[in-house]
Amino acid sequence: MSGSIYGKVFTVSTFGESHGRAVGVIVDGVTPGIELDERDIQGELDRRRPGQSAVTTQRKESDTVQLMSGVFAGKTTGTPLMMLIFNEDQRSADYGAIKDLFRPGHADYTYAMKYGIRDYRGSGRASGRETAARVAAGAVAKKLLAAKGIKILAFTAAVGKLRAEKYCADEIERNPVRTADPDAAPGMIELIRQAAAEQNSVGGVVECRISGVPAGIGEPVFDKLDAELAKAALSIGGVKGIEFGAGFGAAEMTGRQHNDEMTPAGFKSNHAGGIIGGISTGEEIIFRVAVKPTSSIAQAQRTVDVNGREAVCEIRGRHDPCLCPRLVPVLEAMSALVLVDLIKQHAALRG
Amino acid sequence: MSGSIYGKVFTVSTFGESHGRAVGVIVDGVTPGIELDERDIQGELDRRRPGQSAVTTQRKESDTVQLMSGVFAGKTTGTPLMMLIFNEDQRSADYGAIKDLFRPGHADYTYAMKYGIRDYRGSGRASGRETAARVAAGAVAKKLLAAKGIKILAFTAAVGKLRAEKYCADEIERNPVRTADPDAAPGMIELIRQAAAEQNSVGGVVECRISGVPAGIGEPVFDKLDAELAKAALSIGGVKGIEFGAGFGAAEMTGRQHNDEMTPAGFKSNHAGGIIGGISTGEEIIFRVAVKPTSSIAQAQRTVDVNGREAVCEIRGRHDPCLCPRLVPVLEAMSALVLVDLIKQHAALRG
Amino acid sequence: MSGSIYGKVFTVSTFGESHGRAVGVIVDGVTPGIELDERDIQGELDRRRPGQSAVTTQRKESDTVQLMSGVFAGKTTGTPLMMLIFNEDQRSADYGAIKDLFRPGHADYTYAMKYGIRDYRGSGRASGRETAARVAAGAVAKKLLAAKGIKILAFTAAVGKLRAEKYCADEIERNPVRTADPDAAPGMIELIRQAAAEQNSVGGVVECRISGVPAGIGEPVFDKLDAELAKAALSIGGVKGIEFGAGFGAAEMTGRQHNDEMTPAGFKSNHAGGIIGGISTGEEIIFRVAVKPTSSIAQAQRTVDVNGREAVCEIRGRHDPCLCPRLVPVLEAMSALVLVDLIKQHAALRG
Amino acid sequence: MSGSIYGKVFTVSTFGESHGRAVGVIVDGVTPGIELDERDIQGELDRRRPGQSAVTTQRKESDTVQLMSGVFAGKTTGTPLMMLIFNEDQRSADYGAIKDLFRPGHADYTYAMKYGIRDYRGSGRASGRETAARVAAGAVAKKLLAAKGIKILAFTAAVGKLRAEKYCADEIERNPVRTADPDAAPGMIELIRQAAAEQNSVGGVVECRISGVPAGIGEPVFDKLDAELAKAALSIGGVKGIEFGAGFGAAEMTGRQHNDEMTPAGFKSNHAGGIIGGISTGEEIIFRVAVKPTSSIAQAQRTVDVNGREAVCEIRGRHDPCLCPRLVPVLEAMSALVLVDLIKQHAALRG
Repeated sequence: MSGSIYGKVFTVSTFGESHGRAVGVIVDGVTPGIELDERDIQGELDRRRPGQSAVTTQRKESDTVQLMSGVFAGKTTGTPLMMLIFNEDQRSADYGAIKDLFRPGHADYTYAMKYGIRDYRGSGRASGRETAARVAAGAVAKKLLAAKGIKILAFTAAVGKLRAEKYCADEIERNPVRTADPDAAPGMIELIRQAAAEQNSVGGVVECRISGVPAGIGEPVFDKLDAELAKAALSIGGVKGIEFGAGFGAAEMTGRQHNDEMTPAGFKSNHAGGIIGGISTGEEIIFRVAVKPTSSIAQAQRTVDVNGREAVCEIRGRHDPCLCPRLVPVLEAMSALVLVDLIKQHAALRG
Repeated sequence: MSGSIYGKVFTVSTFGESHGRAVGVIVDGVTPGIELDERDIQGELDRRRPGQSAVTTQRKESDTVQLMSGVFAGKTTGTPLMMLIFNEDQRSADYGAIKDLFRPGHADYTYAMKYGIRDYRGSGRASGRETAARVAAGAVAKKLLAAKGIKILAFTAAVGKLRAEKYCADEIERNPVRTADPDAAPGMIELIRQAAAEQNSVGGVVECRISGVPAGIGEPVFDKLDAELAKAALSIGGVKGIEFGAGFGAAEMTGRQHNDEMTPAGFKSNHAGGIIGGISTGEEIIFRVAVKPTSSIAQAQRTVDVNGREAVCEIRGRHDPCLCPRLVPVLEAMSALVLVDLIKQHAALRG
Repeated sequence: MSGSIYGKVFTVSTFGESHGRAVGVIVDGVTPGIELDERDIQGELDRRRPGQSAVTTQRKESDTVQLMSGVFAGKTTGTPLMMLIFNEDQRSADYGAIKDLFRPGHADYTYAMKYGIRDYRGSGRASGRETAARVAAGAVAKKLLAAKGIKILAFTAAVGKLRAEKYCADEIERNPVRTADPDAAPGMIELIRQAAAEQNSVGGVVECRISGVPAGIGEPVFDKLDAELAKAALSIGGVKGIEFGAGFGAAEMTGRQHNDEMTPAGFKSNHAGGIIGGISTGEEIIFRVAVKPTSSIAQAQRTVDVNGREAVCEIRGRHDPCLCPRLVPVLEAMSALVLVDLIKQHAALRG
Repeated sequence: MSGSIYGKVFTVSTFGESHGRAVGVIVDGVTPGIELDERDIQGELDRRRPGQSAVTTQRKESDTVQLMSGVFAGKTTGTPLMMLIFNEDQRSADYGAIKDLFRPGHADYTYAMKYGIRDYRGSGRASGRETAARVAAGAVAKKLLAAKGIKILAFTAAVGKLRAEKYCADEIERNPVRTADPDAAPGMIELIRQAAAEQNSVGGVVECRISGVPAGIGEPVFDKLDAELAKAALSIGGVKGIEFGAGFGAAEMTGRQHNDEMTPAGFKSNHAGGIIGGISTGEEIIFRVAVKPTSSIAQAQRTVDVNGREAVCEIRGRHDPCLCPRLVPVLEAMSALVLVDLIKQHAALRG
């Protein structure tokens, strides 16, 4: 595997499996002289950790971060930051029953095909646990962005067919499903509880809005802002699609409808989602990601074992019945990593 | 701009503007000893070039490719291939009227914000003409993939609200709109003609299917196969979204519905679109991209000039009323570049 | 700082300062299925650690490595390896006296100029301690190379003006100065002791020989084997030059003298040092690096303080009077990282 | 081959063989708004081209550059620059006699081992002709550096055992051997003529001095300024070693001698060669490279043919009897590429 590094000048390298000793990340290319302490990072990790509410997995991990390098006297030194999170709840026993089975919808099979290794403890590197490292790195990126007035907010925009109809930024952290529509929250929670009760899971949509990005960020023609955000989003386990601005809706529009006219006061609309030609327009950046229903369900499913023989698999671990609430901070983190890297690349252009 | 290079071990570097002297590409990391001549590349370029049918722009460019290096005695040598395409139809005069205007929906504004430069000839580097270089590079990648039994086919899956309902691979190149559904073709063509007649444009969806990819391709956790395909697709001008397999539909499914069960005979379904955990499953890879309606329309639109003053813009150039038919070979090319790079990276894993 | 990552497909990311909590490294792109345990790594670290002999610094660090990820059931999984080494002997007090001074010959000044930060504890990131991470990563690389029959041996080829005249590979680890010439060892040791006694230091030369590399490794034109080895060697603190084969001696030769003639039995000589045109010839790879005398000496030296005022600096820490003996395993490690990365890149060429 | 790209944010991609249609380069990451025309580039190419004086090869190439993209209205646009140089003198006939032989000291053998291809025309990609692309790219880099007050001057510091003893910058371009010591020039020229008369060749040393670089440039720990310069220099065909400041001489010095003391007026000496800890000190950057004698000599040499059979090789082409005079602009170009890339990376640090 050589894909565990993201970024060209602001670079993150992650490591760790769900049932190994630890997960963590090195962040290189950090602006020196920025105030940073472990609480900045812990706050974001607490939003991602399991067991935080009734709609998430009841697995217990404190996800306590330790900042091992790159900070002196409370400030970044410009040298690499290493952030370490020890794994605590390593009940590998939970996995005994499926030790030799490929779980449907799961990366068990593809990892085995790629690496020739069957690490049956949790999901090894393919586990959602790996995203803790992303969130830790993203917390640093968010700190750098905040100093530039850039704010990233993601929220659950749909659970199953139930969509958020309102956008109330302040409500997001006030409901366990992390939706921006307080009226939709109870229904979403109910949908998730019902799926859990049926030993099933449910998909959803997470939307991300980024304000304060100046016009000019993004590196055409391959490293466009939307291209990098798409890569970053699709690199998160469970994400199956992304759309910017009008997105798939744009496919049904005419140019007259879709084009965002300009006036001396600014753009009249934002169908583009804040990015044109792969470069930020200065408008709010808006995109949505499709999140598949959690693969791990307790219902009996047909599968094969590692020897290719027919089998039935009933997954007994503790899993999120809907990935969206905990994916919200992960998507924010990945977006922050993309933005800091491209903002620094833009600085290099004239440097 | 430092974003004109794609790929880690199979690397393409493109250059060129719509109204400069030429566009082209260097391909590095080419397998040595492969038979290659200019006709292999020209065939793909002919599928992309303007003026090829009634539903595309009537601008004339022969897009004749010259292979300048990397081939000796009809075979690749392993050294960089340089492919050069001179620009012929440089009617910059067409652009006089909009010289100082920012065209709505166009990258004029964002490029000016980023580079502080106003290159009003065509769209400079933001022009779709840049994709000729991608198609040339993609033709080389396709040649390498074909030798491994991998086949990439894209087609127009929707124009506006009209969707292809059938998939007949052989039909794609038999209709000018490049849809796989011959019954839908006449309606799609009519929609495009109508948009053109109204000095308007129309969006659509392009789907891509890739067969023959063995299980195991893709580099978690950041350089996943779907993440790289998403980046590649979103780097194409006009693409506003992408979804894999069930895609946004997965958001409305349960785990029971979405999980692809396995039997000794293989997967029972392919909601995953051939990729799980960022690694190919061995099933067909399927994804769709949302294509916005062409920004350049002849209708009068409100805009501002380079001094921020109110203006009206009427674009008189010759533009595609729908981007989909010509985007088909571009999406195939980008997909081929992604696959070759990741297949070679996978070879490095055990190398 | 964005320079803490080395390698394209076999990638190492290091972190850590001399007086922070830990140093360490993530290694990505590791071949899966290779037997690896902490003892493989510890053995190499023990060769580098301080306090191992009379000619090295008496600072005490056990340099105990912990392997945090990437290994399951005693074998590599193909996922990133994280190796962590806690710092133990953090006597920052030693540095109080020079807290505000720039030590001559030291990176204090340049780091302060670059990062605007003065981390006076030890040398922060510029400390030789950082090389422990390289040695840990190199131990993994050596393991991969050993399986291919590739062996890397470095040794002290000169201390001051005293040169090794013989090459006895088995002798290297038998004398504390790590020279391959047992007859020269006592004199070298005496030179180092004398320098130490005079509160001074002494330079030297370290030579590296690599056997078993097949012909064909190296990626022209920029990522040539010798170019990458030169980068890797010069990235080690204290190295001021490198030469391959006849090296600077080649400058005084004629083509007739320097050219290595070939016969059916192989090359008749190896003035090239095993690399021609940036690609391995299959002969032994041989290069030498110039090592400057340790900057940190206890003698009084003229300098300036952080405010630019005249000052006298007397360094009271515990330092190696000659860098060569401990640089030997570091140079081997860096060479191993280069080779594994280029061997894997070569595999990608035909992949 | 995947090594034809150099640079992280200021990136050059080169292509072309000695006897193909053309050589050239794409430069990406160029600062927008800089005045640039073909004459800026041609001037540097004229310093490198063959046939310019009595001590260089008499092969004729005008090396006329064409700037194909990235410039509008006389200024860089920030988009990729493509520079193309057609090959004119393609007398492949000269090579008929050695078609099946591996020339001693030449990359014939290693390229054949690596790529499985025998491109016998000239030296294919391994030819010195490839450096024309580097010089073209370097000319752009020099233009960017000149605007920052940075000046790069290389010169022949030794031919065989004859060394330049003086440094007169203005004299370098006034003698065909490009030495900075006008008194040594006649002797050097005589040595080269004598080697040519004997159908032999002679090695030498080229020194490079760079003034005006501010303190703080270079990215520890792997991408140090000296590490990148070493890689860049060793990537040039014929270079077998490099040393910075006191270089190999430092190996024979004590710390007391080598340390550059500081006073309020600045450094008292520059044994470090302007780089400490991999970061520029603000002093002049000084390094020297060892240049091997040209491999191509007309004398009969023992070799093998492509089937491994004994053979005698007499090379009848037209070759430089000493590489140094024409290597001077190439070393400057590579140094310029390194500096611009690292200066831009440094800008990204705080960006």
